[in-house]
Amino acid sequence: MTKRIAILGASGYTGAELVRLIATHPAMKIVALTGDRKAGMSMAEVFPFLAHLQLPTLQKIEDVDFSAVDLAFCALPHATSQAVIAALPRDLKVVDLSADFRLRDPAEYEKWYGKPHAAVDLQAEAVYGLTEFYRDDIRRARLVAGTGCNAATGQFAIRPLIEAGVIDLDNIILDLKAGVSGAGRSLKENLLHAELSGGTHPYSAGGTHRHLGEFDQEFSKVAGRPVRIQFTPHLMPFNRGILATVYVRGDADAVRKALADRYAAEPFLHVLPFGQLPSTRSIAGSNFVHLGVVGDRIEGRTIVVGALDNLTKGSSGQALQNANLMLGLDETAGLMLAPVFP
Amino acid sequence: MTKRIAILGASGYTGAELVRLIATHPAMKIVALTGDRKAGMSMAEVFPFLAHLQLPTLQKIEDVDFSAVDLAFCALPHATSQAVIAALPRDLKVVDLSADFRLRDPAEYEKWYGKPHAAVDLQAEAVYGLTEFYRDDIRRARLVAGTGCNAATGQFAIRPLIEAGVIDLDNIILDLKAGVSGAGRSLKENLLHAELSGGTHPYSAGGTHRHLGEFDQEFSKVAGRPVRIQFTPHLMPFNRGILATVYVRGDADAVRKALADRYAAEPFLHVLPFGQLPSTRSIAGSNFVHLGVVGDRIEGRTIVVGALDNLTKGSSGQALQNANLMLGLDETAGLMLAPVFP
Amino acid sequence: MTKRIAILGASGYTGAELVRLIATHPAMKIVALTGDRKAGMSMAEVFPFLAHLQLPTLQKIEDVDFSAVDLAFCALPHATSQAVIAALPRDLKVVDLSADFRLRDPAEYEKWYGKPHAAVDLQAEAVYGLTEFYRDDIRRARLVAGTGCNAATGQFAIRPLIEAGVIDLDNIILDLKAGVSGAGRSLKENLLHAELSGGTHPYSAGGTHRHLGEFDQEFSKVAGRPVRIQFTPHLMPFNRGILATVYVRGDADAVRKALADRYAAEPFLHVLPFGQLPSTRSIAGSNFVHLGVVGDRIEGRTIVVGALDNLTKGSSGQALQNANLMLGLDETAGLMLAPVFP
Amino acid sequence: MTKRIAILGASGYTGAELVRLIATHPAMKIVALTGDRKAGMSMAEVFPFLAHLQLPTLQKIEDVDFSAVDLAFCALPHATSQAVIAALPRDLKVVDLSADFRLRDPAEYEKWYGKPHAAVDLQAEAVYGLTEFYRDDIRRARLVAGTGCNAATGQFAIRPLIEAGVIDLDNIILDLKAGVSGAGRSLKENLLHAELSGGTHPYSAGGTHRHLGEFDQEFSKVAGRPVRIQFTPHLMPFNRGILATVYVRGDADAVRKALADRYAAEPFLHVLPFGQLPSTRSIAGSNFVHLGVVGDRIEGRTIVVGALDNLTKGSSGQALQNANLMLGLDETAGLMLAPVFP
Repeated sequence: MTKRIAILGASGYTGAELVRLIATHPAMKIVALTGDRKAGMSMAEVFPFLAHLQLPTLQKIEDVDFSAVDLAFCALPHATSQAVIAALPRDLKVVDLSADFRLRDPAEYEKWYGKPHAAVDLQAEAVYGLTEFYRDDIRRARLVAGTGCNAATGQFAIRPLIEAGVIDLDNIILDLKAGVSGAGRSLKENLLHAELSGGTHPYSAGGTHRHLGEFDQEFSKVAGRPVRIQFTPHLMPFNRGILATVYVRGDADAVRKALADRYAAEPFLHVLPFGQLPSTRSIAGSNFVHLGVVGDRIEGRTIVVGALDNLTKGSSGQALQNANLMLGLDETAGLMLAPVFP
Repeated sequence: MTKRIAILGASGYTGAELVRLIATHPAMKIVALTGDRKAGMSMAEVFPFLAHLQLPTLQKIEDVDFSAVDLAFCALPHATSQAVIAALPRDLKVVDLSADFRLRDPAEYEKWYGKPHAAVDLQAEAVYGLTEFYRDDIRRARLVAGTGCNAATGQFAIRPLIEAGVIDLDNIILDLKAGVSGAGRSLKENLLHAELSGGTHPYSAGGTHRHLGEFDQEFSKVAGRPVRIQFTPHLMPFNRGILATVYVRGDADAVRKALADRYAAEPFLHVLPFGQLPSTRSIAGSNFVHLGVVGDRIEGRTIVVGALDNLTKGSSGQALQNANLMLGLDETAGLMLAPVFP
Repeated sequence: MTKRIAILGASGYTGAELVRLIATHPAMKIVALTGDRKAGMSMAEVFPFLAHLQLPTLQKIEDVDFSAVDLAFCALPHATSQAVIAALPRDLKVVDLSADFRLRDPAEYEKWYGKPHAAVDLQAEAVYGLTEFYRDDIRRARLVAGTGCNAATGQFAIRPLIEAGVIDLDNIILDLKAGVSGAGRSLKENLLHAELSGGTHPYSAGGTHRHLGEFDQEFSKVAGRPVRIQFTPHLMPFNRGILATVYVRGDADAVRKALADRYAAEPFLHVLPFGQLPSTRSIAGSNFVHLGVVGDRIEGRTIVVGALDNLTKGSSGQALQNANLMLGLDETAGLMLAPVFP
Repeated sequence: MTKRIAILGASGYTGAELVRLIATHPAMKIVALTGDRKAGMSMAEVFPFLAHLQLPTLQKIEDVDFSAVDLAFCALPHATSQAVIAALPRDLKVVDLSADFRLRDPAEYEKWYGKPHAAVDLQAEAVYGLTEFYRDDIRRARLVAGTGCNAATGQFAIRPLIEAGVIDLDNIILDLKAGVSGAGRSLKENLLHAELSGGTHPYSAGGTHRHLGEFDQEFSKVAGRPVRIQFTPHLMPFNRGILATVYVRGDADAVRKALADRYAAEPFLHVLPFGQLPSTRSIAGSNFVHLGVVGDRIEGRTIVVGALDNLTKGSSGQALQNANLMLGLDETAGLMLAPVFP
């Protein structure tokens, strides 16, 4: 039976990406789209690339009839999300794409986001949405918190290595290259084409990026002891894709084996043959993740490189994968689109 | 019943785009892929973005068992195509993506391509692949000649205006902006990133571009008298997409009506509301065409703007649409993918 | 003797480009920089690419001592400019880069800019800053109005043809491709990298772009009768450069001769050999203009292509060239920098 | 007195960049340009962006009269360079931009470049061209070997830290982002716009990049013991600029002080205030280097980020700076051009 879907915050990039993916989904139908400032507009006006679809007009959240909705994606800004979700019917399945429910510990939330959480009970209820590691919990969850896109990329590369005990936990460096759509449709000077194209720069360096909250929480949980990595993101002059270059201490063969074993049965995770390293171009527009491993000339040091599309596997594709699980559908439904190259 | 597909010349961009599209096609299966210099390699090696698919290894054309093939796409270079297709079984359905069978008149072929045609009988048999205008012929055809990508864009914008008799046939100017993937995967200095990015330039100006052969043939046929347009293509620093800006003499309302009427029932053609003009970004990665019309401040002059993705609707998507017709399948099968934005 | 220069509005792109050019000027020294919202900041903070220069701190206009200034560049937004310049000392030499003083007729100004001009006397005094055509007036002027960047490109290609009487005045079409820095450092959704890169679209089509006011004024003046052209600008996914493709009726040889003769002695205007057409990449970062001509296959029709850098010859370089004249300096001082390629 | 300059290999990017810089040099004149396959062509044909300059026609090396040359820049491919330079007059001053004379030890050369060196005597004579560290030797040198562009970037960030003894020598990781012009004007599939734009990937990872030969040689020499770093370059979708992100162990204040002290008197090296990190956009087109430092949240770990333009300070600008020293000219002559932004 076709599931009825609402997308709250459909005028941003992750909202639009959800629409794009659901457009060819065999068992979902979009019944409500919201956009606060753009209520009353058609999606074709807001996103002309969706003009070929028959879609509901954008409306205000308070005008949505949630009794006719099976699952809502919440693609609203951080902080807004917790207020909105707290006001939704408590039996409505929700996949949240914001940062609001990623951290379990209210103190950690406050530390990284600068203010107390406004829906602590929901925070406790929420399941962390890294599908390949929380699949069973997600299947049973009512509220799933989508991961950060950088956080997803780093975890796909590092997490199995911690699980398998093949690397030194105190020497993990993640140098990340992030496409600009991860910053959303926000009007900031440094996101203008004239400022961003043709070059690169690091940002939030030295341990200040909020996705470190997720890395700390998850890696420490897996390791059973505190793990803190170094993380430097760089803003890239392209729209889609994240490349994570991870420097670890451990044997390259053991590292590659840990990844290959962990992901052997995963439909979206692909560990490349030795000697081959990922490119963001080879996953752009898709839900696939590519991982590659190379041993350094210095013995005992290994480099892991991972790539995914921040809008797909890093947020909206992940969200749809989780929704499929929550609704009892085929986990890969609507998600087997090939990347777009060139 | 699933149709068995061969792709000849699978190591180029149009070949890869066919694989991408067929990957989610419900009724086609790729049974053979050829690549002369790359025979023996896997597609994952040649195009890592296709690594998630189970595909046949690249082989030489002479090693393909065509008795087990329902339809072959021929994505080979111009001139090579005619020799290869002439040697294929004469009952094999073929969609050719090269320029070899686009022009009906051998003299015109020789004029534009600089040498005599080597398969004049096939040239006579071939149906011109502009689906929306040759649908019935294509359905019955054995050999279909894919159009030029620029030729397709220009015809979608201009052809209905000639049919409807709403423009002056002696004053048609087509200023075209073409993404670089249209030039293929060829090693030319001016296609290097360092040479191409960050700027634009015209090429083949003044009436020398080969796609004029198609415009002349088709527009003259529709008009019932010789029609010669002006055509200036410009190479754009982006990978996918063609934007055609067409300057015509005629009433803007009549022009827009001619387009809207002609394409009212077409699944891939979308005429925008007055006041809205297309962007290549809104069709990239898809088989859709956007068309917009604006009247000039000078009475009687009108501008038509059309946009499509050169690799999809301009070549491989068009080819698949035609193959669907030739095989008795749903014309839109595998082609309803939404564009990718941003 | 070194001339003392003030730049009003130094926190935008044209202001920064002036600083870049004056940095190696042998006879100018920047003594004041203003930026309303950024007063108190150093230029190195606002534009880190200027960090190697010793520059005055940004201040408010009202804090500048204009008695110690020989010439002021006014790089403020449209409408702001006229108010600011009206309040400056009436003997201060001023080069304005805004649109405020480009149109001589107050009615035309109101028509194109939507409100009455607030400094009609200055409007009458201002000299139009297209150096190669107003050189003597500029040398004597106190107030020079920089041209629009699109308007400059179009005029360099078309104006000599009208002067020489070699083209039909009623059939001029200007299809223009404009780099995004021409839109300034303004926070608009369509200027974001994620929205702009990877594609193109037309804007202000059909005769609504304000630079048509300049074309109408100048071409009609040269022709001695009303001349109205068609003009369609397209936003390009690169930062610097404008390419103008002009469709005219006239003999290609006569057209090329008119350009070559007119610009034979000009240091910045370069008419390419027949058969060669300009690329924006070959002038980016410089004050040079490249022009090329090709005859169409349809007799009597000719295409002229021109290219310049919108921030240099299209605004700040032009402004500096004019300032050199106004101050009795070598016209090319500070302006012979080669383009930057690749 | 004006110095007479020859550029051997003027049809590549570094050759053209030399011409660009020398175009505004007050004391140099280009008297010979060579290009083997392009002999007989004008530079305007090969590089239209240089069309405004009066330059010698390209000729073959054997046709150059070196008796009328004060200094030759050799911008030829690796391996070709050593043969060519060996055949030049032994009293001719030469700045070589290839890799041929960077490594002092013939065994190291053979290890990294895969064949024995053909001019071992010249190898012994050559001075390593990292100006800020070999200035006096360069002033007296006849033959200077330009550094690798990546090697220059890494050394500017790391070398003073080794000199000052403020970091752990066994824990240095260099994650580098390199613009594509560093790969030269070579026809390779992965350098095509369609393949390169819109994404990123690592290459020569795990200790296989040839510039490691330079790092090993120089860092070990400075430290007085073997130093081996980890180095992963990534190909970036932009033309100019290298960003080096360096992970070291040491106190952030001590690290920044070491850089600031070392470069206090250097005209082209700029250490940013704490809290500010470089962008390649802020140095593109110029000979400047920006360096920034940030302490990690993990005590004792520090990140250093450096940026330079690979074609300027990374090769041709460095070469000109060295030539100025060798010819007794002002070291900064022709090199104070501001970066080009946006």
